[in-house]
Amino acid sequence: MAIVGRDHLITDDSALKRYGRATYAVEHPVLAAVQPGNTEQVQQCLRLAQEQQVPVYPISTGLNTGYGSAVPCAPDCLLLDLSRMRAISDYDAELACVWVEPGVTQQQLYDFLQEQGDGLWMDCTGSYPEHSLIGNIMERGFGHTFMADHYAQVGGFEVVLPTGDCIETGAGQFAGARARGYYRWGVGPHIDGLFTQGNFGVVTRACIWLHPAPPYTLNFACAVNRDDDLEALVDCLRPLRLDGTIPSAMHIGNDYKVLTSILRYPHDRAGGKGPLPEALRDEMIANWEFGAWNVSGALYGTRASVRESKQRLKAALKPLKGRVRFVDEGLLRFAQRISRPYAALTGKNLEEMLKLARPVFGMTQGRPSRDVIASTYWRKREAAPADPNPERDRCGLIWVSPVFPTRGAEARAVWDTVRETLLEFGFEPSVSITMITGRASDCVVSIAYDRDQAGEDEAALACRDALLTRLAGQGYYPYRLGAGGMGLLANQRDSNRRLLADLKRSLDPAGILAPGRYEPGE
Amino acid sequence: MAIVGRDHLITDDSALKRYGRATYAVEHPVLAAVQPGNTEQVQQCLRLAQEQQVPVYPISTGLNTGYGSAVPCAPDCLLLDLSRMRAISDYDAELACVWVEPGVTQQQLYDFLQEQGDGLWMDCTGSYPEHSLIGNIMERGFGHTFMADHYAQVGGFEVVLPTGDCIETGAGQFAGARARGYYRWGVGPHIDGLFTQGNFGVVTRACIWLHPAPPYTLNFACAVNRDDDLEALVDCLRPLRLDGTIPSAMHIGNDYKVLTSILRYPHDRAGGKGPLPEALRDEMIANWEFGAWNVSGALYGTRASVRESKQRLKAALKPLKGRVRFVDEGLLRFAQRISRPYAALTGKNLEEMLKLARPVFGMTQGRPSRDVIASTYWRKREAAPADPNPERDRCGLIWVSPVFPTRGAEARAVWDTVRETLLEFGFEPSVSITMITGRASDCVVSIAYDRDQAGEDEAALACRDALLTRLAGQGYYPYRLGAGGMGLLANQRDSNRRLLADLKRSLDPAGILAPGRYEPGE
Repeated sequence: MAIVGRDHLITDDSALKRYGRATYAVEHPVLAAVQPGNTEQVQQCLRLAQEQQVPVYPISTGLNTGYGSAVPCAPDCLLLDLSRMRAISDYDAELACVWVEPGVTQQQLYDFLQEQGDGLWMDCTGSYPEHSLIGNIMERGFGHTFMADHYAQVGGFEVVLPTGDCIETGAGQFAGARARGYYRWGVGPHIDGLFTQGNFGVVTRACIWLHPAPPYTLNFACAVNRDDDLEALVDCLRPLRLDGTIPSAMHIGNDYKVLTSILRYPHDRAGGKGPLPEALRDEMIANWEFGAWNVSGALYGTRASVRESKQRLKAALKPLKGRVRFVDEGLLRFAQRISRPYAALTGKNLEEMLKLARPVFGMTQGRPSRDVIASTYWRKREAAPADPNPERDRCGLIWVSPVFPTRGAEARAVWDTVRETLLEFGFEPSVSITMITGRASDCVVSIAYDRDQAGEDEAALACRDALLTRLAGQGYYPYRLGAGGMGLLANQRDSNRRLLADLKRSLDPAGILAPGRYEPGE
Repeated sequence: MAIVGRDHLITDDSALKRYGRATYAVEHPVLAAVQPGNTEQVQQCLRLAQEQQVPVYPISTGLNTGYGSAVPCAPDCLLLDLSRMRAISDYDAELACVWVEPGVTQQQLYDFLQEQGDGLWMDCTGSYPEHSLIGNIMERGFGHTFMADHYAQVGGFEVVLPTGDCIETGAGQFAGARARGYYRWGVGPHIDGLFTQGNFGVVTRACIWLHPAPPYTLNFACAVNRDDDLEALVDCLRPLRLDGTIPSAMHIGNDYKVLTSILRYPHDRAGGKGPLPEALRDEMIANWEFGAWNVSGALYGTRASVRESKQRLKAALKPLKGRVRFVDEGLLRFAQRISRPYAALTGKNLEEMLKLARPVFGMTQGRPSRDVIASTYWRKREAAPADPNPERDRCGLIWVSPVFPTRGAEARAVWDTVRETLLEFGFEPSVSITMITGRASDCVVSIAYDRDQAGEDEAALACRDALLTRLAGQGYYPYRLGAGGMGLLANQRDSNRRLLADLKRSLDPAGILAPGRYEPGE
């Protein structure tokens, strides 16, 4: 308490409850929460924790939704809530980077960059604007632009080790090094990766690389009607992703994914029990112009170079006979202006379509959007409130995210397993495939439900575990795991597990920091 | 001996001598050399070494020229020579990657890719064609294309730990994982970086990412006449490197660098003692069309997009009034054809210029070249032999490679210190600046001399140490260190040093693997 002051030590039950709830059944009572205001206080907290042998669980803003939110991976931890550490510093417009603390949100950095007015872009995820940038880097998350792979855009970390020692990585390992943050590798072993997806240290500052805004951005969207087209779609887009024609992480959502994003589950017509009957799904889809698989991505460059990329993209997609649409800033503005007369003339709701297009377009330029939160309420009986909060409102959401080589046949294998498993457990198989690179793609599966419905919590967890096990049996492992679901790490080679255990023991002999996090014995 | 067979255990002094010589005065007697043929034998060697408490020093092909070649960082090591492990495997033309063992050379992979004929490119360094790919990745070296940052192009490692345990990194941490090699991060802590520039493990296999050949490559070269133009040159090129107009790592060599690459030291005219008098330098330069600073790089893309980039590049360079030249495959072929009539008409030796242009052009397409080796003989009295071998021929060469933020003023600060220091110690300040990214550049300084001249070995080491110390005093640290020159690591923050020592202790309690390598106490 002397470390952070009375206001920043939280011990009363109702306040602590806020930290202890996720969007699925994972609950670990929290001893207390402490909110340090700076790195030194984080060091002091860890030193005290070592002295007192109290386990500590760090969170940034705690919005790890679908993967456990703020819930620790073990009971009776002291929660180290870093959300007060909101400093943005060492902004360098010339070399395009900036340092942030764990409490800095996507929206905060976006607003900061807008204010600076230097035309620099960041990348954002499709998650909340209040999402911590560092939190996402720690999970090696991804977004929508050519900087989509967030951990790859890090110039260096400041890290508090379990002992309370503070280090800097990369060039910053030397005090006063001028290349700090600009040169990622430093000299000697490169240790940054150790502090992602694990419990080896608390990152208290990160250098994020930005990028000059390209002169022109053209979004594209393509839909194919048949589920069977998935293989061909992946195989014809891969070469363009691999050769750089499509520099953005491309997303391919299925019909369920789009449906759950824009509509609500028709409880009255669905017979009271999931999954959504196919006939009903088809009826719901019919009113919208999307297909079995829906690609969205962006091309960047000068108008002339984008025009060339556009031609290559159209040529590649031609055999699929899919609808390809292109949207840029100018078209969006135009559509906005004509939406009323357009509706009057055609009866089509352009306004509604614009509501979908705008946030997607924004995200391919690094602009965070709140629109995605609403989809978490898909299965809820009540309408989403004006201030949505899925954890508070007992929305059910578990994300499972297997990685596969970017090949049509592998996409098919993953999708078949996902579809069968989710339907079997009574959930809509809503997926979004991201071509992180031309070599590896990630299939983010949403298990969405209503925690207030008896039995659904249990079914969802059973579904997650079955899905992880089945996919692993086929060789598909996730890029990320959630609280209460780390068990899959027991599948690691014995030698890898021994190595990680040895490293952990050397950095944190008593296992004080985030016990269970990315550990097979969680 | 039972592990590798009699033929692959080397104990006789004359054979061992080959391993023990570098291009500067660093000598550590080697106990014996063992040449394992596969990963299992590497494991057995390490297990035996732990049992017998014998230090082991791994080399790939041992061509770490300028940084210590094959010489260990401590005396009386068993040399683990991995050059027999030359397997290229799991080549994947579709997803553009391939696995290599430590003995696979740049030339070998280049030839392999040519044979496959799938139009995939690799990246190479300017060093020997016989250079190991993994050896360079281990030192986080760089090359010339858009894949210049070699460690950034790694999809995963197989590593033998000091204990003899064998692990795989990235997705390969799970046996049978389909994304092995394709997905770099895996799940859980990302540990690959630990095994670069250190002594935490022996990498026995690496997945290297390749890239589809771009449709068109245009090389550019630009020379500015005044030394004072360096700042402006860096500042006007940086935005193009940062925004992707110039996707290749760009190199900026000074006049000394070009001179030492194409000519030999004029011992007869130089008065017997370095550095080369300035008047003589200017006279030597006058016959050639290069400037105080000479940029070379490449643009890639379609002809139309390259044309746009070319315009931007020309516009950026305009204020400098430098000569900009562009060379593509077609022009090279044309010049080849007309070189004789051209010489007859103009008296200019186009042939000689082509000899310079061709390897540079090749390297921007990933084609290794032998041409650079000759420059190591700059200060030697004798002509370079037909089979150059700088270590054997007692060429003197030490490389010092400080990293600085890509800003003109910083380039100037580094260059001033380099020039003053090298001249003070009697060496030509030959440097090549590489814009690794728009944010960080590396200045590779060559201290070139003749080991057969009394006192030069000592002067060169004193020069290296003075240069490292002076640069560090200004905040400029190198990206890489050489055998006998690791002492700078003592400048690391105490907490960083403690962390690395703890990690080392946990992986290799007896310090068997590569003692001294990237350790401050070398």
